[in-house]
Amino acid sequence: MAPQLDSYFKQVDHLSGSFIERLRKAVAIPSVSADEDRRQDVVRMSEYLVSELKTLGAHVESRPLGPQPGKEHLQLPPVIVARYGSSPSKRTILVYGHYDVQPALKDDGWATEPFELTIDDKDRMYGRGSTDDKGPVLGWLNSIQAHQEAGVEFPVNLLMCFEGMEESGSEGLDEFIEKEAKKGGFFDAADAVCISDNYWLGTEKPCLTYGLRGCNYYSVEIKGPGQDLHSGVFGGAAQEPMTDLTRILAGLVDTHGTILILGIAALVAPLTDEEQSLYGHISYTMDNLYESLGSHTSVHATKEQTLMARWRYPSLSVHGIEGAFSAPGAKTVIPAKVTGKFSIRTVPDMEIEHVNRLVFAHVEKAFEKLGSKNSLRVSCQHAGKWWVASPKHWNFTAAAKAAERVFGVPPDLTREGGSIPVTITFEQATGKNVLLLPMGSSTDAAHSVNEKLDRRNYIEGTKLLGAYLHYVAEEPMTNGA
Amino acid sequence: MAPQLDSYFKQVDHLSGSFIERLRKAVAIPSVSADEDRRQDVVRMSEYLVSELKTLGAHVESRPLGPQPGKEHLQLPPVIVARYGSSPSKRTILVYGHYDVQPALKDDGWATEPFELTIDDKDRMYGRGSTDDKGPVLGWLNSIQAHQEAGVEFPVNLLMCFEGMEESGSEGLDEFIEKEAKKGGFFDAADAVCISDNYWLGTEKPCLTYGLRGCNYYSVEIKGPGQDLHSGVFGGAAQEPMTDLTRILAGLVDTHGTILILGIAALVAPLTDEEQSLYGHISYTMDNLYESLGSHTSVHATKEQTLMARWRYPSLSVHGIEGAFSAPGAKTVIPAKVTGKFSIRTVPDMEIEHVNRLVFAHVEKAFEKLGSKNSLRVSCQHAGKWWVASPKHWNFTAAAKAAERVFGVPPDLTREGGSIPVTITFEQATGKNVLLLPMGSSTDAAHSVNEKLDRRNYIEGTKLLGAYLHYVAEEPMTNGA
Repeated sequence: MAPQLDSYFKQVDHLSGSFIERLRKAVAIPSVSADEDRRQDVVRMSEYLVSELKTLGAHVESRPLGPQPGKEHLQLPPVIVARYGSSPSKRTILVYGHYDVQPALKDDGWATEPFELTIDDKDRMYGRGSTDDKGPVLGWLNSIQAHQEAGVEFPVNLLMCFEGMEESGSEGLDEFIEKEAKKGGFFDAADAVCISDNYWLGTEKPCLTYGLRGCNYYSVEIKGPGQDLHSGVFGGAAQEPMTDLTRILAGLVDTHGTILILGIAALVAPLTDEEQSLYGHISYTMDNLYESLGSHTSVHATKEQTLMARWRYPSLSVHGIEGAFSAPGAKTVIPAKVTGKFSIRTVPDMEIEHVNRLVFAHVEKAFEKLGSKNSLRVSCQHAGKWWVASPKHWNFTAAAKAAERVFGVPPDLTREGGSIPVTITFEQATGKNVLLLPMGSSTDAAHSVNEKLDRRNYIEGTKLLGAYLHYVAEEPMTNGA
Repeated sequence: MAPQLDSYFKQVDHLSGSFIERLRKAVAIPSVSADEDRRQDVVRMSEYLVSELKTLGAHVESRPLGPQPGKEHLQLPPVIVARYGSSPSKRTILVYGHYDVQPALKDDGWATEPFELTIDDKDRMYGRGSTDDKGPVLGWLNSIQAHQEAGVEFPVNLLMCFEGMEESGSEGLDEFIEKEAKKGGFFDAADAVCISDNYWLGTEKPCLTYGLRGCNYYSVEIKGPGQDLHSGVFGGAAQEPMTDLTRILAGLVDTHGTILILGIAALVAPLTDEEQSLYGHISYTMDNLYESLGSHTSVHATKEQTLMARWRYPSLSVHGIEGAFSAPGAKTVIPAKVTGKFSIRTVPDMEIEHVNRLVFAHVEKAFEKLGSKNSLRVSCQHAGKWWVASPKHWNFTAAAKAAERVFGVPPDLTREGGSIPVTITFEQATGKNVLLLPMGSSTDAAHSVNEKLDRRNYIEGTKLLGAYLHYVAEEPMTNGA
């Protein structure tokens, strides 16, 4: 039997003005975690959350993480953990979000003051953090409030984990989650996890996200002379590290995105008919891609190929070169030591170490073939595993029902090409299913200028989060594996 | 009959202390032309030269060059022109030098204060500008003074041209030289030109320099998406400009320095037996090269091959990429627009425009083969012609005799891999032979930290400049062509 949600939905609409005020106050706090000088604002934002949660009657704790590694004079912002309800008869859902934001300056090209929520005539609410991730975080709070004011019983025990360093590498968070997920820890009782910190694939249709690619990031350093040389004086006499490096980078991938490293393609899980059938239904067009790219320079011609290339196949990108001349103008330098940077987005069943071995062997062999007197060092700078959950798990089927209830259409089941490392941390630490349930849309410009959250996504999104909690409270517990 | 030089030489030795004081005063003026805030010091240095030249009885003019292009509030430093002697029965020699210097800060790694001449126990005189180019400029003044105090008649009419912007692109100088070389101009009467602004090949043996390579500097811009993309989100879906660029750069030159652009090799003047025979005698070893490189990563195995590669064959260096990720660390960006920079050092008989056509055709064809949807733009950022003079011209044979007289060995006849654009300007404007007559040695570290001039090079160099003027006054006028 479908949950009774009408009075909750009505109350959300009724409170929408105050929910927008809540977001306005949050956006006004410039909680930029990358900026040391803003650390007090990040802390202030954590205090705002604590205060709001207390007013709603939640049990709240502000947990210190100690000094920031490498900056011992600077304390990390606290993790805010909260519990709303602790009935043994209810399921317990753990939700995650972050209250810090990317840097933003009006001069970067913002049309409005980045730390003043500004609503235009199309109900687009502009402001840094509006969609990433203050809107979704406050969505959970709004949901509690609307239940209270509608007199509707809250359907689950809600555990909340809100961090303040997500935009700066989530320093200290992994250890914290691992500790609190253990027996007796704050997250111990969680039956499932929900993260609202990504985006719809388009602008009209909700989605549930069940997969992320991993990322292995590599450095290829080539070193020759003891110091940079003048190309007039030594050009032709010295072997040049840049010559070797361009030849190695050129052998990694071709214009059409095919990875040229022997053995990589064989690691990719084969495409099943069932999986293939999913892509055709997804609400996405090549024009959506062209709009995001700002160009027609796509690798593929069809939507299906494009989505598979982003979600379920690996890709290799060359990011740049450290140590070479990179400024405007003309400098006649022979760089003595250059470091090429590239990364491979990984997918099932590519294991980090296996990929590393193939990459190292490929690069070393390519360098050997050059017959160079320079020296080579190839290394993996960091690696994060891919993640794929079963969209048939009860956590997902509940969310799908909630999304269809709120938006009138079944949500798209999507994966993402990028990584959200905390997803795997929660999955591994709790051993529970993790659902990514986005609130914002593809046009929200998170991390960019003129970040916004549409009023519709915020208000209907608040309904979605609440509805999800009702459905997940009642969904038969099948893991869909 | 060899000129009588003994009393001149003796007087130079006698005055060596005051010559070093003259250099000390000059080094103490931080005439850094690249630094706007030092412009008054550059002007002060010009005034010091004017004052010294007047004291020596020369006719001196300080010629303004107007405001600095692009910085209309800032006046260019003046060109100091001077004339010492104007006897119709004497030959007229035009000499060039510059009184501005490269930037220098103690913090850059200097062992001593850069603007205090500091002499160590091996008579190495450290200080910014000591060898580049205040020492050589003052060498001409010292030479006049020593003639006067020795009571030896000055053998030529000496025209001097000392500029204050050499380290910053010699703004305004070309037009000035062209104007003054015309009939009735200050340089009109010149019979030959001598520039002392380069270095010995080693540390023991003097040299005369008769050739320089030219330089064509190229940009290859590849543009795809409208803005930088996230490699997680779009890797595999978008064609990446960096992929195309690395493949184009990799096809320009190989590890062993062979230029892969069709048609370039055919433009190079063939090596004659006569020219080939010159290289064996030159005082240079592979160890000298290894020491300069700070490594053993040479292209060639022999001295002769190495010198030819630096002086008489073209080379191609890839300098770097603008627009890609170039900082330390790991950034998962797909750069939207990247610009590769490379240059070709040119030699006889490579014409600038011909080389451009070959490069453009090669790059465009390589890009076409990629089948990319990105767009390409290749252009020549700037080009300077190579220069080769005949070392059999009387200007050179005179200098060779002077060098042998002072140092007891015939000088090496060298070319250089880099360019000194003013050389061609003087040659073309005056139509006369230009000789490069270096004072400093290969270890002087011009443009680097701990720049120095050895006492021997300064004092014997002053003798050399004076002796050259005696020999050039008497040398039979054969052009050696």
